[in-house]
Amino acid sequence: MLIDAFEVTFIKELVHGFPRSPRQLNSLQGTDAEIVEWPDHGARQLAVSTDSIIEEISSGLYDDPYLVGWMTVMASLSDLAAVGSVPIGLLISEIIPHDYPRSDLRQLQQGIADACIECETYIIGGDTNCAKNLMLTATALGTLNDRFLTRSGARPGDLLYSSGQLGGGNAYALAKLRRFDVLPSFMPIARLREGQSLTTLATACMDTSDGTMATLDQLMHQSGVGFELNATWDNALRQEVRDIARASGLAPWLFLAGQHGEFELLFTIPPRRVESLLAVAETMQWQPLLIGRAIPKTEIRLPLHDRIYTIDTTAVRNFASFRNIEQYVDALVQYDKELQEGAVTHA
Amino acid sequence: MLIDAFEVTFIKELVHGFPRSPRQLNSLQGTDAEIVEWPDHGARQLAVSTDSIIEEISSGLYDDPYLVGWMTVMASLSDLAAVGSVPIGLLISEIIPHDYPRSDLRQLQQGIADACIECETYIIGGDTNCAKNLMLTATALGTLNDRFLTRSGARPGDLLYSSGQLGGGNAYALAKLRRFDVLPSFMPIARLREGQSLTTLATACMDTSDGTMATLDQLMHQSGVGFELNATWDNALRQEVRDIARASGLAPWLFLAGQHGEFELLFTIPPRRVESLLAVAETMQWQPLLIGRAIPKTEIRLPLHDRIYTIDTTAVRNFASFRNIEQYVDALVQYDKELQEGAVTHA
Repeated sequence: MLIDAFEVTFIKELVHGFPRSPRQLNSLQGTDAEIVEWPDHGARQLAVSTDSIIEEISSGLYDDPYLVGWMTVMASLSDLAAVGSVPIGLLISEIIPHDYPRSDLRQLQQGIADACIECETYIIGGDTNCAKNLMLTATALGTLNDRFLTRSGARPGDLLYSSGQLGGGNAYALAKLRRFDVLPSFMPIARLREGQSLTTLATACMDTSDGTMATLDQLMHQSGVGFELNATWDNALRQEVRDIARASGLAPWLFLAGQHGEFELLFTIPPRRVESLLAVAETMQWQPLLIGRAIPKTEIRLPLHDRIYTIDTTAVRNFASFRNIEQYVDALVQYDKELQEGAVTHA
Repeated sequence: MLIDAFEVTFIKELVHGFPRSPRQLNSLQGTDAEIVEWPDHGARQLAVSTDSIIEEISSGLYDDPYLVGWMTVMASLSDLAAVGSVPIGLLISEIIPHDYPRSDLRQLQQGIADACIECETYIIGGDTNCAKNLMLTATALGTLNDRFLTRSGARPGDLLYSSGQLGGGNAYALAKLRRFDVLPSFMPIARLREGQSLTTLATACMDTSDGTMATLDQLMHQSGVGFELNATWDNALRQEVRDIARASGLAPWLFLAGQHGEFELLFTIPPRRVESLLAVAETMQWQPLLIGRAIPKTEIRLPLHDRIYTIDTTAVRNFASFRNIEQYVDALVQYDKELQEGAVTHA
C-alpha cells in the first residue's frame, strides 16, 4: 500500500504496458481483489507458487532492471512448468525505492511484460510499496487437469533428462559477479509446454532454479533414490559454459554445483516411456537431454575423467551460505580438489 | 530462495503450526508449485489479492511479531471479503533478517496460524528470503460463484453502510506511534461472511484498509457518485476512539481521515434491499451500521456540529506522504481548522 492519492496514477503507469487477460473480469482498481474467470475445459486443480527476487538483486547478480522484471515472472512460471500446469496469470508485489529512476522502472516493467508475452500469460494484479531496496515477489497461478508432476516419484532405473542445456545460470553468475568483460546470455524461458507434456510421462520433475546439484539433491531426498550422471554428462553443458570453465580454470562440473540455476526441468522417465517422450518432444521441436539415471542408493554420482565420484550435495549446497562470491567459488574449487584427491571409486 | 540445505529444516519449522488444507494435494516440498483441489460446488471465478506489510513494520506501527503475522493474513483476506469470495488459502513470502530472534519468529508464525484458523482457511505455500528488514507479503486465493462485489456500482440514493465500528485503526496508530501508555486493541478480522452475504445485495463494496475517507474517495471515483455521511455518523466510532479523540484533543472525524484503517467493509445498498440486508444480517448476528448515502455530486460531505462540510479527500490522502507521525497529525489538525474556518455549508 502506497498510501497517497499518487498511487492511482502510479499504478496506471506501472501496468500500462501489460496486456490484460481476456479472462479477467474486474476493471483496473475496480475491485479489492482481482477476479479471473475459471477456465471450463476440464481444469480440476489450481497450481500456485510464489517467489521473491531479493538476494539476486542485493548481491548485484541482477542489476539490469529488465532482467529483474523478466526473472521475477520466469522464476514463478518455472515452478508451474515443473508441475505441468497451464498458467492463468501472475500477481506481482513490487517494493520500489523512493529514488528509483523512472527509466529503470520502465525497463523493469518492460521485462515483466515481455516475459508474460513470451509465456502467453498475464499480470492479473499486484501491490506496490516503498522501501530502501528494490525487491519483487511474483505469485503465479495455473490450472491442472487431474495430473501433476512431483519431486517424489523417481524409481531406480528411470532415466534422468534435462529439458535443455545446463550451467548457463552459474556461468552468468560467475561472469557477472567477477566482472568479466563479456557476459554469457542469461534470459531463461520457463519450460511450460515441456512440463505440460510430461504430466503423463515423467515420474518426477523439478526445475533447476537452484542449480543442477541442488535439484538432484531434492529429487533424491523426495524420491528416495540416487542419481548417476552419464559419462558424457558434459555434453549437456552449454558451449559458452565450457568456454568460461576453460578460461577461468574451473572444473566444468562446478557449473552444475553452483546455486544459480538455468531454470531447466530435470525429470525422470521409466525406460518403457522413452519412445513416447521422444515422439512428443519431436512434435514440439524439443530436444530433451539424457544426462543420467536413477539408482537405488541415495547418493549423487558424477563421472569425472575415468572415475565415478560421489558428490556430497548437502555440503555443496551449504557453501551457498558464504555471502561472498570469491569465498563461494574458493569453497567449490577446494571441494573439487579434495574430491579428486580422496576419491572413492564406485564400480 | 534461501539457498542452503538449512532451508528444508527451517521451512518445516516455520510451517509446523499451520493447519494444512484438506484440499491440498501435494506434500510439503514435494512439488515446485502448490496444488489445491478445485472445489466443485459451483465455483466459477477465482479471486486473488496480494498485500505486503512493509511500511507498517518499518514505521514501528506493527512491532509485535504476532500482530505482524495476523495482519499479513487479514489484510489479504479482507480484500477477498470485499469482493464476496470464499477463501481457498494463502501463500506467504517472508523476508526475514538473519538475526531475527527465534522467539519473535515463533510469535509471528503463530499470528499467521491463528489468523488462518479464525477465518477457517490455510497457508498453502510460500517462500522465505533474507534481507535486513522484516517484510511479509501474502497472496490470498478464493472462489466466487458468478457474483462479485466491485467498487463501481454505487448509485445516488443508495444507502452507505459499514460492516462495523470505525476509527479503531487510526486510534491504534496514534496511540502506538505517539507511545501512549495504553493501546486500544487492534486485531481486525476479515469480514468474509459479511462480504459473501453482500454479493446479491450491495451495489458497491470496499474494505477500509486505508481508512474510511480513502475508501469513500475510491468508491466515489469508481462509482461516479459522492457520499454524504449521516448527522449521527460519529455513532459508528468505537467508544475507545471517542475516548482517545477527547484525550488527545483531536477532532473525532480525523479518525476517519487517517490512513490506517480498521478493515471493515463500506458498502452501498439500494433502499429497496435494506429489508433483505437486515434480515440476512440478523441471521448472522451481525449489525451493519448505516452511516450515510450516495449523492449525485462527486464529493464527500461530512456533517460537523450544525454544518455540512465538503472534505477534500485527495488532499487528505496526500498528507500520508509525510513520513513522520507528528507532521501527519499536524497536517490533519491544520486541515480540520481550515475546514471549519473557511467552511462551505451545503443545503
